[in-house]
Amino acid sequence: MVFHVSYPRLLPERRPPGHQPAAPRFSLRWDDPVPFLTSDYFGLQGQDLGWSEQSAFFERLRASFSEHGPDAHEIMRTTDEHGAINAILVAYWLDPTRHARWLAASPFMVWFRDPARETEAHGIWRETIAVPYDRHETIYSAPGYAIGLARTPKASRQPITMNGYFGAARDRMPVSAVDALESPLGTTLPPRRLPQSAGRRLRTSTPLNMIAIRSGQYWEGAGAEQLADYHDNLQPKLMRGMQHLVEHPQETGTLSLRIMTNLNEDGSPRAETSVLAHVLDLSQLEAWARSHETHLDIYRHAIAMNRLHKEKREVVTWHEVFALLPGLTGEYVNCHCGTGLLPYFAEA
Amino acid sequence: MVFHVSYPRLLPERRPPGHQPAAPRFSLRWDDPVPFLTSDYFGLQGQDLGWSEQSAFFERLRASFSEHGPDAHEIMRTTDEHGAINAILVAYWLDPTRHARWLAASPFMVWFRDPARETEAHGIWRETIAVPYDRHETIYSAPGYAIGLARTPKASRQPITMNGYFGAARDRMPVSAVDALESPLGTTLPPRRLPQSAGRRLRTSTPLNMIAIRSGQYWEGAGAEQLADYHDNLQPKLMRGMQHLVEHPQETGTLSLRIMTNLNEDGSPRAETSVLAHVLDLSQLEAWARSHETHLDIYRHAIAMNRLHKEKREVVTWHEVFALLPGLTGEYVNCHCGTGLLPYFAEA
Repeated sequence: MVFHVSYPRLLPERRPPGHQPAAPRFSLRWDDPVPFLTSDYFGLQGQDLGWSEQSAFFERLRASFSEHGPDAHEIMRTTDEHGAINAILVAYWLDPTRHARWLAASPFMVWFRDPARETEAHGIWRETIAVPYDRHETIYSAPGYAIGLARTPKASRQPITMNGYFGAARDRMPVSAVDALESPLGTTLPPRRLPQSAGRRLRTSTPLNMIAIRSGQYWEGAGAEQLADYHDNLQPKLMRGMQHLVEHPQETGTLSLRIMTNLNEDGSPRAETSVLAHVLDLSQLEAWARSHETHLDIYRHAIAMNRLHKEKREVVTWHEVFALLPGLTGEYVNCHCGTGLLPYFAEA
Repeated sequence: MVFHVSYPRLLPERRPPGHQPAAPRFSLRWDDPVPFLTSDYFGLQGQDLGWSEQSAFFERLRASFSEHGPDAHEIMRTTDEHGAINAILVAYWLDPTRHARWLAASPFMVWFRDPARETEAHGIWRETIAVPYDRHETIYSAPGYAIGLARTPKASRQPITMNGYFGAARDRMPVSAVDALESPLGTTLPPRRLPQSAGRRLRTSTPLNMIAIRSGQYWEGAGAEQLADYHDNLQPKLMRGMQHLVEHPQETGTLSLRIMTNLNEDGSPRAETSVLAHVLDLSQLEAWARSHETHLDIYRHAIAMNRLHKEKREVVTWHEVFALLPGLTGEYVNCHCGTGLLPYFAEA
């Protein structure tokens, strides 16, 4: 048996009657109950940021994981819209008490909180996703490759049928059976402000039901044919879709979006990328997915490749989605003013 | 059917094998799923605080409840250890989005956030309890009288057998099946500091698994015999117990404790009181309940009266307990420095 939470429905599901998905898909399940999930992102930011600095940042984090550390973590890198390089470590905790203890006492967090960080050459930031189980959902195109939350212990990818229609992500999130997950702010982004952030420590206070989505693709070991298709077709389509979201924040509810590349231990890129995006309201992400050409393009291509290659498909796509509780979810130290959620939710 | 959440146990229950409770008890259940519970306390504070000021505060709150207001609320009063009168309204929301919308836009919260509040004659404060369902538990000595969370729609008090032994409160909290609910701070209170709070707006950031307990007694309409017993026996025992907690914060983990009296519409006291206490770690509350004479006295008396009067018992006792998530849970404007959780968790 695997653990899951479900509620009697008060709200209709989006799944059409008699729906049969076009392609097999999988969701994460754990053997033991996991009432609460935490995903903490740590970033080092600089216009020029060599591998030695990135590596030292990752090592500082990892060295602090010996006590109360995460259940899984990955290292990544992105260059943001301001041209800054961000070295990013994402860490997943299944036990909120371990996470809280790590935050309270780890050498990394002591270093992070030191006022000396405010006046150094680089910026550092932290964005936390912490939700009850019923406020998350996952999907994977194949059961074999563990990434993200799936790398935590006692997790497996189980076949689902709640996929392959618009609204499936919402349906998969248990709380959606009884909660419309509307943003209390509606679907209009707050005014975009660029705070004085250099040399300062700023926090972001983010609203209930803000959506965090990490959406990824993995093509390590793909053969020539599928590799060529990935580079020539799927990747450009993905990039067009992401560009549309970034360039149309008000229309799509996109608050922040980072295209991150997973790294090998020597800092070289892996054949593995993911996008971390924050969206004000789930319905905005759904509207883009359902109706915008840039998403339909990605979607149709993924389905077509699945049908063509079936279990021989060598490119894995996946995502994990969280509907956040309100609170202080971000901390940015000496970062540029456009970092993450700073432009929308920096505390006064 | 009634809604409930339960997890396969990873941690042993405290209930002794074959346990049969000495007296019937009841827990709150709702007809529909309620994944998230919110209880928000609003206070007006002053050394001299007439009924007209208290009443105006309550009316300001109630007038703001027409849109996105709570599912239930009560008005109360307490005089705190500093001799200040606090007029308190507690409001319960079953829908976190309604609560968030009310916080974002209600006339009361606009007034509360106005910097003008920082320099007025009185203080105002707000303490919020907001938890997933699996982090709460309730108990009532009788099914008939609805108070606290029990006044929310579609709630009923259902008979239980998980009562009448030490550790039962923990066992009733669903998440305790898989989470020991330890404080990341251990069982030592943080240093008690008395911040500069007059004329200022301060927030408190409180730790994971801090316990909030509202524990009450209702004796309205009790006949002469049971009324006399309440006044001569139960009430003094309760007051001794509360005094012990307040006077031994380090030993008992007690961070804050208010003995509140429910009010009639004209401001006169009802035959109904409750205690709102915050405790660092559930195990500390359990240790007091299990082994300290002041609690055993209360406990034995309650059981004896239940056995004596059975269903004719006219005094209702009850509590609701919440194990909090970490975050900004309190805001204190122009309050005295000993208010609520300020001495332990005021933000720097």
